[in-house]
Amino acid sequence: MVELTTEDCFGGVVRTVDDRASKLCDPARLNPVTGPIHVEGAAPGDLLAVHFVDITPRRDWAISTTFPHFGALTTTDETAMLHPPLDEVVWVYEVDTDRGVLRYRARRSDHEVELPLDPMHGTVGVAPAEGEVLRSITPSAHGGNMDTPEVRAGTTLYLPVNVDGAQLAIGDGHCRQGEGELAGTAVEAAMSTVVIVDVVPGAAPAWPRLESDDFLMSTGSVRPLDDAYRISQHDLVGWTGELLGLDPLDALQLVGQTGLAPVGNMVAPNYTMVAKLPRWALGGARAYDGLHERLRHAGAEYLARRRAPSGAYGAEKDHHQGAA
Amino acid sequence: MVELTTEDCFGGVVRTVDDRASKLCDPARLNPVTGPIHVEGAAPGDLLAVHFVDITPRRDWAISTTFPHFGALTTTDETAMLHPPLDEVVWVYEVDTDRGVLRYRARRSDHEVELPLDPMHGTVGVAPAEGEVLRSITPSAHGGNMDTPEVRAGTTLYLPVNVDGAQLAIGDGHCRQGEGELAGTAVEAAMSTVVIVDVVPGAAPAWPRLESDDFLMSTGSVRPLDDAYRISQHDLVGWTGELLGLDPLDALQLVGQTGLAPVGNMVAPNYTMVAKLPRWALGGARAYDGLHERLRHAGAEYLARRRAPSGAYGAEKDHHQGAA
Amino acid sequence: MVELTTEDCFGGVVRTVDDRASKLCDPARLNPVTGPIHVEGAAPGDLLAVHFVDITPRRDWAISTTFPHFGALTTTDETAMLHPPLDEVVWVYEVDTDRGVLRYRARRSDHEVELPLDPMHGTVGVAPAEGEVLRSITPSAHGGNMDTPEVRAGTTLYLPVNVDGAQLAIGDGHCRQGEGELAGTAVEAAMSTVVIVDVVPGAAPAWPRLESDDFLMSTGSVRPLDDAYRISQHDLVGWTGELLGLDPLDALQLVGQTGLAPVGNMVAPNYTMVAKLPRWALGGARAYDGLHERLRHAGAEYLARRRAPSGAYGAEKDHHQGAA
Amino acid sequence: MVELTTEDCFGGVVRTVDDRASKLCDPARLNPVTGPIHVEGAAPGDLLAVHFVDITPRRDWAISTTFPHFGALTTTDETAMLHPPLDEVVWVYEVDTDRGVLRYRARRSDHEVELPLDPMHGTVGVAPAEGEVLRSITPSAHGGNMDTPEVRAGTTLYLPVNVDGAQLAIGDGHCRQGEGELAGTAVEAAMSTVVIVDVVPGAAPAWPRLESDDFLMSTGSVRPLDDAYRISQHDLVGWTGELLGLDPLDALQLVGQTGLAPVGNMVAPNYTMVAKLPRWALGGARAYDGLHERLRHAGAEYLARRRAPSGAYGAEKDHHQGAA
Repeated sequence: MVELTTEDCFGGVVRTVDDRASKLCDPARLNPVTGPIHVEGAAPGDLLAVHFVDITPRRDWAISTTFPHFGALTTTDETAMLHPPLDEVVWVYEVDTDRGVLRYRARRSDHEVELPLDPMHGTVGVAPAEGEVLRSITPSAHGGNMDTPEVRAGTTLYLPVNVDGAQLAIGDGHCRQGEGELAGTAVEAAMSTVVIVDVVPGAAPAWPRLESDDFLMSTGSVRPLDDAYRISQHDLVGWTGELLGLDPLDALQLVGQTGLAPVGNMVAPNYTMVAKLPRWALGGARAYDGLHERLRHAGAEYLARRRAPSGAYGAEKDHHQGAA
Repeated sequence: MVELTTEDCFGGVVRTVDDRASKLCDPARLNPVTGPIHVEGAAPGDLLAVHFVDITPRRDWAISTTFPHFGALTTTDETAMLHPPLDEVVWVYEVDTDRGVLRYRARRSDHEVELPLDPMHGTVGVAPAEGEVLRSITPSAHGGNMDTPEVRAGTTLYLPVNVDGAQLAIGDGHCRQGEGELAGTAVEAAMSTVVIVDVVPGAAPAWPRLESDDFLMSTGSVRPLDDAYRISQHDLVGWTGELLGLDPLDALQLVGQTGLAPVGNMVAPNYTMVAKLPRWALGGARAYDGLHERLRHAGAEYLARRRAPSGAYGAEKDHHQGAA
Repeated sequence: MVELTTEDCFGGVVRTVDDRASKLCDPARLNPVTGPIHVEGAAPGDLLAVHFVDITPRRDWAISTTFPHFGALTTTDETAMLHPPLDEVVWVYEVDTDRGVLRYRARRSDHEVELPLDPMHGTVGVAPAEGEVLRSITPSAHGGNMDTPEVRAGTTLYLPVNVDGAQLAIGDGHCRQGEGELAGTAVEAAMSTVVIVDVVPGAAPAWPRLESDDFLMSTGSVRPLDDAYRISQHDLVGWTGELLGLDPLDALQLVGQTGLAPVGNMVAPNYTMVAKLPRWALGGARAYDGLHERLRHAGAEYLARRRAPSGAYGAEKDHHQGAA
Repeated sequence: MVELTTEDCFGGVVRTVDDRASKLCDPARLNPVTGPIHVEGAAPGDLLAVHFVDITPRRDWAISTTFPHFGALTTTDETAMLHPPLDEVVWVYEVDTDRGVLRYRARRSDHEVELPLDPMHGTVGVAPAEGEVLRSITPSAHGGNMDTPEVRAGTTLYLPVNVDGAQLAIGDGHCRQGEGELAGTAVEAAMSTVVIVDVVPGAAPAWPRLESDDFLMSTGSVRPLDDAYRISQHDLVGWTGELLGLDPLDALQLVGQTGLAPVGNMVAPNYTMVAKLPRWALGGARAYDGLHERLRHAGAEYLARRRAPSGAYGAEKDHHQGAA
């Protein structure tokens, strides 16, 4: 059980609609993460389970901004074109953790609406394989900046361990995020987060996986989305086949008729796809001997001790349902 | 109000696990559609609304199959590689419309599970623009084989009218389908379908849109998924901006934090992405003057006259929720 | 032997730097082609050989222009973004067929340079398969707007015949073009063109192929470039294997070490890649029983009769070498 | 002036047709490079010029092989599919540096042919920016495994300097390579190589550039090829505009009508495109104050001192022409 805090992706320096991330932020220090956390006993080839017990915004405001040449509907360094960048505009959201909402307020027009709070971490990863050192903004087989709203409280993330101690790092909290992180940034916020960490020897997945009460999930992070989709679905087919003892084509068929395929993010440098299998398709089979259920239970007990039954853990789950 | 029947994508000739679509089906006759239906009064530039009142499987069985060089985890004619095709295997599903389920039975291994019935049409389109004639398997701006599970009963599809009478065609019924149509085919079935058709003069969308009780949706059908994602989200940003009177960057921000982005299909020749905006983000604004609500109401009345309150319309809606 | 003339892609209406294609051209009439030419005796499944004997600009000027949302370094309808279009600017080139040059003159800055004339046709195709009707701007298995500079005089293009008479059409002449057609349009010109047409029964290629004195070439036209590259190289591997009696992996190895891979165009709606095998890698093997050589010889005789030895056929060949 | 030797991409352990790289090679040690070479005086923001004076194979044999899930016409870890890998087959080439040829010999069929020797380095790079550490197999903005045949003797490569001393590394010699490195490996060989290194303060390019006697070249290394094409052409447009004082759209037009666009490699993890501008389009303008010409001259003098006038430097140039 680890309690930690994270700063937002701007390092906390963008605070008003007049602050420009492109001027205030050192590119080499964007997207700071908390860690690395050395996990005692984690060795290369092991699986690291990171169960998110609680993710709570630390401030009553959060930030989103367009950023020059960043996002899915603009030219970028990689999708290079001759257009000048889109305007850099900042949105400041009011965050009400008690009511579980945040307030969107248009900047150049007249519209306000409350959005359900659905806190998540965009960046969770371990040290990469083969001695590589990657910027925290890069999602890949080691995790990293996958930016999928599935990394919310109540979910377990499974990562491969590549070095002794795994070297877990967590950051880039979002009060909520659409699928794809279309605008380049989500509703960025500093977080107070509680995770439970566990290790399964020798069970390292090739790509990050997730498990919630309702879904098994595989991810793929690469460009283009086509290949990220292939990686994530291919891994989910293999995982399903293994859990149910299925021939690969039988597993393909089952995933093909029941699986979901939301985008994580389509923001440089790599894009992330998520492949989701509803647990009802598994007929009672449990991944990793019920590890998620055990961590979920431990997390619920922790929260019960810490707060009233109506606390954030259950509430976040409800917000998610409201949002979906 | 139009009642029609559609044959499955194999023309009904694949009926047992020993039938091979690659031998029995004439490629030029794959994916047959019912139509074209001439819509009186529909003129180029108009919007054609197709509200799906009811989609009911006509048989107590349905078919899925791998097909040589077809699907998302195999080489195809377009993603050409040196591998021989995957084995051609057929799955026959038992369909129980009363209980709202279908039975998956593994072919080369030992697993069975009931899946929720969630009937939909993979192919719905009008005559393309600029005199083009396309195979029914191609999704594009005119609709076509978009293969998204969102085209289910209770949903309204908005298509552009390119020629007098629109020339609507509907086919490729699926008892259910995962996002992406990973295996190349869904649970393919002949359908009895009821639609209500309406026209909004001069309101042709650039790409097909959908509306359900819970979401506004835009689609994009092109390769790769990156560009299909861009088209669909770009259209949804524009639509949202128009409905709420928002500046484009304000609309980008709102969609960016609240939108969903599931894959429709990643099967040749074009891939389809869907962009979904939850209606709660719209604060009461209604598209096309509440057209979906009116059609939804008319459809419900039709079903109420036709059957008992426990009929398929409501039931399908429930299956959807169960599946999601 | 067919002598024909073609209009430029604007239908000849853009003539000065003040003409705007976006205003003057009807989108439904862009990229006009000459034809269809009914080829007596060509039947579905046959190969149609189109040998280009001569391609000569008909005017002493030619046009290039940026066009809103068209080209490889701008947002397009398919790569949809929030940027406004790039400025629409027109370049008028002086064409000197005697000297074999054209003059580039910068519009917003001060630079002039003579470029070698290297005339080609961007669009050459037959009726598509399976009853499809496609805009002339779409390149696909039937040919169409492939926009590769390889379609120059001295080259033979091999197309599949899909309908009786093949229905050959030719247009979109370019005085020259870079690989990729980066700016969206090439140096567009009306042409006087001479082709020899021949048929090989039952030898229809899956995708258009080309043959010059120096190279065998396969093409692939699809999105993204990755898949266009795969199609073209896959076809070249198969063709090479067939000509030399090679195992597929032996053919892969030979093409892999000797083949070239230039972009044709990366302009919507499909992208084209060319795969080129130097003839010296073939050790004397000849495609289609030396058809290219026979057509080349017939073309040379025709030109010798028509003009002095220093005529355009030889000269174009030299320009090509100068340009490469 | 640096003389160095490099081992082949297999570390020299694959020597016969019976050796399997997948068994003999440690993945973490594939593609070894010689270096890092600390370049005195090179500071972040500078341009590092690496002129290739001579690249000569060190053995009279060289190796190519298919490798499981590696190459452009096979499923890979990133383009994940359900096919088993292609067979692992090894080709041993005889290398005759005197005659400037290598001998291809089919393994599973009966064909032999001599190919022109055209030695090059697949991997040349410096330390990446922002503290990243990447495997030598990854091409990116720092250079790396770009695998373009343009990196041959007589060519100057321009790299950005990201850390003090630049930390240049060179490896992955190829006796020759097709564009795209279709089969996953080229004709892999240990090399004796001579380079001249120079520094231009403050002139770091965003992406690696090259210069030969005939072309200016920009590169882009990313997935998919579409974006690699965009990066490389965008950089070439910018470079051309700067050299000639052109407005961006004027530069786009000039590159658009004269530029070439060959694939470097389409092998994981990133793909490389090259954008080439013929020097005749520049009207005498010289990049970096004629740096390439000075290095070219110094290299020629070095070779003249070292060997007879018929030596390898000139000969390689001829082989290139033979190959193209």
